[in-house]
Amino acid sequence: MKACVLYSGGKDSSLMGIILDQLGFDVELVTANFGVYDSFHPAQKSAESIGLKHKVLNLDISILEKAVDMIMEDGFPNDGIKYLHEAVVEEVANHYELVADGTRRDDKTPKLNRNQIRSLEDRKDIQYMNLDSFGYKTIKYLVNNLFELKHEKSNKDTSSDYEVEIRLLIDKKGGNSSDIFPEHYQTNVSGLKKQINRI
Amino acid sequence: MKACVLYSGGKDSSLMGIILDQLGFDVELVTANFGVYDSFHPAQKSAESIGLKHKVLNLDISILEKAVDMIMEDGFPNDGIKYLHEAVVEEVANHYELVADGTRRDDKTPKLNRNQIRSLEDRKDIQYMNLDSFGYKTIKYLVNNLFELKHEKSNKDTSSDYEVEIRLLIDKKGGNSSDIFPEHYQTNVSGLKKQINRI
Repeated sequence: MKACVLYSGGKDSSLMGIILDQLGFDVELVTANFGVYDSFHPAQKSAESIGLKHKVLNLDISILEKAVDMIMEDGFPNDGIKYLHEAVVEEVANHYELVADGTRRDDKTPKLNRNQIRSLEDRKDIQYMNLDSFGYKTIKYLVNNLFELKHEKSNKDTSSDYEVEIRLLIDKKGGNSSDIFPEHYQTNVSGLKKQINRI
Repeated sequence: MKACVLYSGGKDSSLMGIILDQLGFDVELVTANFGVYDSFHPAQKSAESIGLKHKVLNLDISILEKAVDMIMEDGFPNDGIKYLHEAVVEEVANHYELVADGTRRDDKTPKLNRNQIRSLEDRKDIQYMNLDSFGYKTIKYLVNNLFELKHEKSNKDTSSDYEVEIRLLIDKKGGNSSDIFPEHYQTNVSGLKKQINRI
């Protein structure tokens, strides 16, 4: 069965990809892009480093624009990113039997709640998966056990998060994205420590 | 890392065992027993059929007695089974770094909620896992893909569920367990359809 994992190149979505691959799904790691900037390259590189297929899903800029409007109005990114993530999930659900993301048990946002998950699965007749089975300690253990990691300052050439295109569009619209997003470090997956065996 | 999966021989706890095994944990499938009846044999057989270690955890009958008192008072098994499951989880958490069970996203009871999980992980300094990542459709797909299954009437020689010892103790105490538990069928795992490869 074909399974899509929404993919940033980070630890969580990489772990989700490996778990589904091990369980025998035909995994495609998918990074959404809205045409503002080719921010998918770091994710593409991470996907290659763990031996899984990668695809770019080109989505209409109007989705990103609505998210950016929300974020500029709020002065705070959470609700806009939540909106964006949900819109991306809805879109990929039209193309795959199973849709997964790397949201974890201890995450708050962006994350689909139980009711949103059931609604999505029923409306689109798909399966949805996230990392709700896993606490932060287990994910830390698995990630350190499985992956080579690269820790670096997050910017438009090191990150494939939604944040990259959001920031660029905010600045294009005359806003100041640095007021909204603090400078931060991020961890990308850059290889496998062990051989992964599929069922 | 040693991981314990609370194990009945059923589909869900078997899937949990396979996932942890694949992820590289040293898995022990553990069936609780309260000394009323050696109800662990079906689970032992299922564990062997999927190539994972099995252990019986002997627990004090007082835990079962409290659960049975609750069930006889309620005339309904849910709260007593919930109490029993939680007591068993607390006990195994003293012996393992990771404790898992086969409760699923769409299950209601017996199931630890998020607050209980966080409390358990903090108090016992362990990791806890369940099948919250997985919806019923995904579990059905995986189970049918991975396991040989045996569907049969549930009784004391085919089941390793908590129910077996609960029923026997209710009847011993002069109650009528058939009034509380309806006759039902159950599915035990009896083999693997594919070779499982560990990381």
